[in-house]
Amino acid sequence: IESAVAAVKAPAKPYVLVGSGTASFSAAQAIKEQEPNANVIIIGNESVPPYMRPPLSKELWFSEDANASQTLKFKDWQGNERNALYQDISQYEIITDVADLNKESTKIKLLLQKTVNKLDVEAHTVELDDGSVIEYNKVLLATGGSPKHLPNQSDVKNVTTFRTVDDLRKLDSIAKKNAHIVVVGGGFLGSELAVALAHRAKTEGLKITQVFPEEGNMGNVFPTYLTKWTTGRVIDEGVDVKPKHSIKSIANAEGDKVKVLFDNDEALEADHIVVAVGIEPRVELARAAGLEIDEQRAGVVVNAELESRRDVFAAGDMISFHDIQLGRRRIEHHDHAVLSGRHAGENMAGKNKPYKHQSMFWSDLGPKIGYEAVGLVDSQLSTVSVWAKASEADTPAAAVSQPENLRGVDVQDIKPSSETAAPSNKQPGNPAEGTVFSDEKFGKGLVFYTKNKKVVGVLLFNVFGKVQEARDVISNGTSVDQIEKIVSKFDIHGSH
Amino acid sequence: IESAVAAVKAPAKPYVLVGSGTASFSAAQAIKEQEPNANVIIIGNESVPPYMRPPLSKELWFSEDANASQTLKFKDWQGNERNALYQDISQYEIITDVADLNKESTKIKLLLQKTVNKLDVEAHTVELDDGSVIEYNKVLLATGGSPKHLPNQSDVKNVTTFRTVDDLRKLDSIAKKNAHIVVVGGGFLGSELAVALAHRAKTEGLKITQVFPEEGNMGNVFPTYLTKWTTGRVIDEGVDVKPKHSIKSIANAEGDKVKVLFDNDEALEADHIVVAVGIEPRVELARAAGLEIDEQRAGVVVNAELESRRDVFAAGDMISFHDIQLGRRRIEHHDHAVLSGRHAGENMAGKNKPYKHQSMFWSDLGPKIGYEAVGLVDSQLSTVSVWAKASEADTPAAAVSQPENLRGVDVQDIKPSSETAAPSNKQPGNPAEGTVFSDEKFGKGLVFYTKNKKVVGVLLFNVFGKVQEARDVISNGTSVDQIEKIVSKFDIHGSH
Ligand SMILES: Cc1cc2nc3c(=O)[nH]c(=O)nc-3n(C[C@H](O)[C@H](O)[C@H](O)COP(=O)(O)OP(=O)(O)OC[C@H]3O[C@@H](n4cnc5c(N)ncnc54)[C@H](O)[C@@H]3O)c2cc1C
Ligand SMILES: Cc1cc2nc3c(=O)[nH]c(=O)nc-3n(C[C@H](O)[C@H](O)[C@H](O)COP(=O)(O)OP(=O)(O)OC[C@H]3O[C@@H](n4cnc5c(N)ncnc54)[C@H](O)[C@@H]3O)c2cc1C
Ligand SMILES: NC(=O)c1ccc[n+]([C@@H]2O[C@H](COP(=O)([O-])OP(=O)(O)OC[C@H]3O[C@@H](n4cnc5c(N)ncnc54)[C@H](O)[C@@H]3O)[C@@H](O)[C@H]2O)c1
Ligand SMILES: NC(=O)c1ccc[n+]([C@@H]2O[C@H](COP(=O)([O-])OP(=O)(O)OC[C@H]3O[C@@H](n4cnc5c(N)ncnc54)[C@H](O)[C@@H]3O)[C@@H](O)[C@H]2O)c1
Repeated sequence: IESAVAAVKAPAKPYVLVGSGTASFSAAQAIKEQEPNANVIIIGNESVPPYMRPPLSKELWFSEDANASQTLKFKDWQGNERNALYQDISQYEIITDVADLNKESTKIKLLLQKTVNKLDVEAHTVELDDGSVIEYNKVLLATGGSPKHLPNQSDVKNVTTFRTVDDLRKLDSIAKKNAHIVVVGGGFLGSELAVALAHRAKTEGLKITQVFPEEGNMGNVFPTYLTKWTTGRVIDEGVDVKPKHSIKSIANAEGDKVKVLFDNDEALEADHIVVAVGIEPRVELARAAGLEIDEQRAGVVVNAELESRRDVFAAGDMISFHDIQLGRRRIEHHDHAVLSGRHAGENMAGKNKPYKHQSMFWSDLGPKIGYEAVGLVDSQLSTVSVWAKASEADTPAAAVSQPENLRGVDVQDIKPSSETAAPSNKQPGNPAEGTVFSDEKFGKGLVFYTKNKKVVGVLLFNVFGKVQEARDVISNGTSVDQIEKIVSKFDIHGSH
Repeated sequence: IESAVAAVKAPAKPYVLVGSGTASFSAAQAIKEQEPNANVIIIGNESVPPYMRPPLSKELWFSEDANASQTLKFKDWQGNERNALYQDISQYEIITDVADLNKESTKIKLLLQKTVNKLDVEAHTVELDDGSVIEYNKVLLATGGSPKHLPNQSDVKNVTTFRTVDDLRKLDSIAKKNAHIVVVGGGFLGSELAVALAHRAKTEGLKITQVFPEEGNMGNVFPTYLTKWTTGRVIDEGVDVKPKHSIKSIANAEGDKVKVLFDNDEALEADHIVVAVGIEPRVELARAAGLEIDEQRAGVVVNAELESRRDVFAAGDMISFHDIQLGRRRIEHHDHAVLSGRHAGENMAGKNKPYKHQSMFWSDLGPKIGYEAVGLVDSQLSTVSVWAKASEADTPAAAVSQPENLRGVDVQDIKPSSETAAPSNKQPGNPAEGTVFSDEKFGKGLVFYTKNKKVVGVLLFNVFGKVQEARDVISNGTSVDQIEKIVSKFDIHGSH
């Protein structure tokens, strides 16, 4: 142990990135851009190298390749070949022992299937589950979040959560058995997975039920009318949606079945339950190290430079950060993991800039309904919205792939969103097959979320390529009275 | 302007301390200890050099010297000669123009009667009210707080607040005129000033009325029974105390008088009103610079190292900081200003340590009643208390002056409290004259404030020299059940 520590001389002390998710990968790349010879090590406890999670509840279920959950290859809605892995394992310097930490290599080092158990801020060390200690130059905490559980979940067989590639592979095997699957949760994950499983149901005869306490899908984000409409579309996809259903308990049932009992005394039997009731940021490590935890929002508290304490940075799902524009926030989305990871990496390499990029997020309920959003979008806020009829071009599948739209590009090509150029007005190339809701009331539209009479969030519903415009609306401090005037920028009544 | 900025070469970039109060002075000294040749500049907008405020509402009113408010010399309760000024103006390098900022000098530089109007974190500059710009190496914000006002206070003549030497001089001149003075507020300042003015009343025939909404003096800090008892003692000192009186309005009255109208429709006429209804931390500068403001507690948000953003530190009354032990806090007391200022200074000079010193505070209601406290003391918390009869030795006047007891020593002799030795058990040397409350129920005692069954604060009432023991009780995570066992450490039933 002595020698491992002693071997790490001052100039070689590594940048240690805890967690092998999107935020860490993005930080590693940013550090390498600033300092190509930097000694950067990612330590993660999953079995696969860094990957993006979004396709796990979307495209990977729509693949024609039955082996997709193994290869992690998928076609995005536009038909481009992609891989959930950010890069092949061969592109990393794989480390299996901390003694190899100072190996000469220009590659990002990757130490997998190890958990960091202790952080000592004053000593500048982290300790792994195998007892080895690494002295760091700067450390990034990017430990993400853990899925929440239902109260007695561990007593019941055939109940899983869904976050990792391992979870995908498991659910993929279950969903091939003609089973009845209950998805618990009406948020991002529950809604996406229900639609994805329903697609699979068309060929495999599954039965998909979705249950949650809200009035409709995405009830915590969308205004009520939109929640209701969206629920209708999820039902159209073949999901048996049970809104306003609170779970009293779950239990094992006969013949390897599981049972869900609701507060209204309804009951449901199924083969499997997928629980998607939110996440808890993983902050045990940070808390034990004496870092501040945001008791209100959860997450480790960092300042606008994503620094918690000197030389201790954090990024991604697990941070409560100071957004200079919108106040303290925690964001659980991919683009934020990319941008905050990148930003933290740059600051670790000495830039010391505030994190001002307004990250976006998106969700697709299959290839036909999609939305993108920026800022604070919460159904508790007041909203102003504008709707138009949608055409075939107004679907995620037809959406133009744009530089700041992370769905279309690999993370390594990303520049901070605030630096991207205004979106082009190219026509979409590859319209989706199937129905679009051109005759429906909520075909496409804009929802402006407001607070103290200012626009603080924008939801772009089946409107694509307008994220930068949405950011501008927020950063200009647009007031509620000005909304009418700026709607034209979003071109929703436009020609296509 | 160009030349002033250009003249400040990289190695000479000063440490700029904004505010000339206790926290700044303490930081300046700490930096000088770390780096004797450092270029340290204190910028303040008062007319006098850095001074301590505590004697302004206490000892300076008990002086035999009629000129005390001018000289700022006073005798502490033990009879030692002191001065509220930390050091004579000649011990500073007085700067009147930013062009002189790089003057060779080992002294702390002091720029008085200038207000810092702008902070640019990214450019590392501050701008003064005369338009000059200073590029800093590190900056400390120690802008303290401004007294709150009553709603229509500015419409009324003969109403003042009380925080500065100028305020002292003004009130001193008013309190020599046989006047009727109303003190508004039952907190620290109102209670201390009422007693101090009542002392003056004995020789100058003043009439002192104190009004506030709580049940008794210090009602926001003390448990109810103690509040009531203490109010009795304030009344004994000659103050006409009106608890449970909320002010509806104040107004000018005939013959240069002022009128106070209460919610219960009582009214009061007087010559002067002193408003002591709390402070508002001065954060305009920080807010405009994009620093985070704690919307719940007020104050600029800093981490456990007292850093808000890279190279931007803050200390004293104006900070919301992360206390690793007790959570996020804001503290408006002298010892915290000393210790956090010192700590910030050390970190500015490169120490990067968390602020773990548990600061104490004290208040005296004249020479006969005093208390000291550590941790969270708030009448909203649950308390456990222990009381004993007091003897003549149990008064502030008789209290042993101890290294960690800041009343007895100048700020430059202070070491961080957590480093001070355990208090000696010397007998007090100089017992006060006059009655002590040896026959009273609450003569001396301990109040333990608890949260989640742990002791989080200790009030030492007429018990002196036990601050370190109180700190230990908190830092050991003492539970409510253990209180009985640890009481003996405080020796309140002891021999003297
Ligand atoms: C199925 C799914 C689909 C999603 N789809 C979208 C989408 O369409 N759009 C969108 O914006 N967002 C989406 N998200 C959210 C997005 O994936 C997350 O916001 C993002 O993954 C957060 O990245 P992160 O790096 O902060 O954390 P994570 O991705 O959680 O990565 C953290 C990693 O750290 C590891 N780790 C934790 N603690 C330790 C430790 N002590 N030692 C070592 N390793 C540790 C974890 O095992 C994990 O691998 C989706 C999430 C899921 C689960
Ligand atoms: C009368 C009185 C008695 C007290 N007695 C006690 C006591 O017995 N025990 C105790 O523990 N505490 C006591 N306190 C509280 C204690 O004095 C404060 O907690 C302490 O002064 C805080 O120090 P500070 O340096 O943070 O702020 P301050 O003392 O408020 O100093 C801040 C300084 O910065 C200046 N400033 C502000 N903004 C700018 C700017 N933009 N540019 C330039 N200068 C600026 C202000 O004018 C001020 O001089 C007392 C307070 C008062 C008013
Ligand atoms: N497109 C995207 O951005 C996307 C997609 C998938 C997942 N994610 C992320 O993955 C994480 C997990 O997603 P999620 O949907 O679980 O979280 P979420 O916070 O989006 O939704 C939680 C949902 O859980 C439900 N819920 C809570 N308690 C419940 C209970 N006791 N019984 C039944 N339902 C209950 C509610 O319906 C609520 O909508 C989140 O961080 C989310 O942001 C994001
Ligand atoms: N010994 C000490 O530590 C000490 C001594 C003096 C001053 N100080 C500090 O100086 C500052 C000012 O002291 P303070 O006593 O004004 O503040 P405080 O916060 O101690 O007390 C405020 C008091 O104002 C009163 N109040 C509030 N609103 C009112 C209203 N509308 N009408 C009438 N009364 C009202 C309440 O009685 C309350 O107790 C504080 O930061 C204090 O900590 C500390």
